[in-house]
Amino acid sequence: MEYIAIVTLLALMQFMMFSIQVGSMRVKHGVKAPAISGHPEFERMFRIQQNTMEQLVVFVPALWIYAHLVNPLWGAGIGLVYIIGRFVYRAAYFKDPASRSNGFTIGILATSVLLVWSLVAAVMALI
Amino acid sequence: MEYIAIVTLLALMQFMMFSIQVGSMRVKHGVKAPAISGHPEFERMFRIQQNTMEQLVVFVPALWIYAHLVNPLWGAGIGLVYIIGRFVYRAAYFKDPASRSNGFTIGILATSVLLVWSLVAAVMALI
Amino acid sequence: MEYIAIVTLLALMQFMMFSIQVGSMRVKHGVKAPAISGHPEFERMFRIQQNTMEQLVVFVPALWIYAHLVNPLWGAGIGLVYIIGRFVYRAAYFKDPASRSNGFTIGILATSVLLVWSLVAAVMALI
Repeated sequence: MEYIAIVTLLALMQFMMFSIQVGSMRVKHGVKAPAISGHPEFERMFRIQQNTMEQLVVFVPALWIYAHLVNPLWGAGIGLVYIIGRFVYRAAYFKDPASRSNGFTIGILATSVLLVWSLVAAVMALI
Repeated sequence: MEYIAIVTLLALMQFMMFSIQVGSMRVKHGVKAPAISGHPEFERMFRIQQNTMEQLVVFVPALWIYAHLVNPLWGAGIGLVYIIGRFVYRAAYFKDPASRSNGFTIGILATSVLLVWSLVAAVMALI
Repeated sequence: MEYIAIVTLLALMQFMMFSIQVGSMRVKHGVKAPAISGHPEFERMFRIQQNTMEQLVVFVPALWIYAHLVNPLWGAGIGLVYIIGRFVYRAAYFKDPASRSNGFTIGILATSVLLVWSLVAAVMALI
């Protein structure tokens, strides 16, 4: 399970890095809390972080269920694809929000594979 | 634990479905990223999804702790109540945000039962 | 693992308490759903809750990985520091958002210790 732990920790650290970057944009552009708008760069970084959180809360439980029901090593590989997808998404969205779909799709596909495969494995284990 | 895995996967898929519906509302009403307002239907679906995330991040850990400390089968049953509550919430909120309280209450009650019962079980196991 | 379960449940309950307080501010200041702005007190409480969710989704998996790979009792101790940090953050932010950094730092340090120490432990277990 060390592989799954490492991939999970890396995904959590990636999200934390995005959160820190939101904070940096806040300072850089003088967007005072509790405001969540005021400068395009801040707003983009904030949406990147928020969207990554929406993915992360599905990805982490799906990864661990997959690791237990299917295969931890394959899970770690699919997890790395998710992390790469999120970096692609971050780079594209920050440059131009309209170009975000490729990175988004990589992450969502990785998570969907974990979810659907795990569900099939869990149902098969019961019948 | 297969029952708990299945209920967790269904709750994650439900949230992912709500996320996809936020994306659809974005396209349908021409709300361009990174904007998170601009059309009532988009804003309602966005709040449904956000509120579901706020519930999900409590529900999933609470469900697994309950399954380990109390009873996985009962946990799965309470988990199904949570999922139904979230669908009721989604339907009511989207029609009229003011009518959201019933669905909200079902979900929050299910999660509260998991939390409080687990806490009692954990403390009892220590003393 | 009972200690880790108890700390996790307390952190989840803390977040749920903050969520309920957002709802109370909504009612108190007449901020009708789906609006997420309209009164400074509501906006502050909303940002406190949102920021706590951003921390919670990293804290919970990091805590459990740490408990398995390093030490559950130390994990519980670090977890209590996180919870205290979030209460400090809540109190300061609600009074004056500009004073939020101390409470924020306590929580983020606790989570960072869990993340980095777990990563080191996981990598050491593999080599």
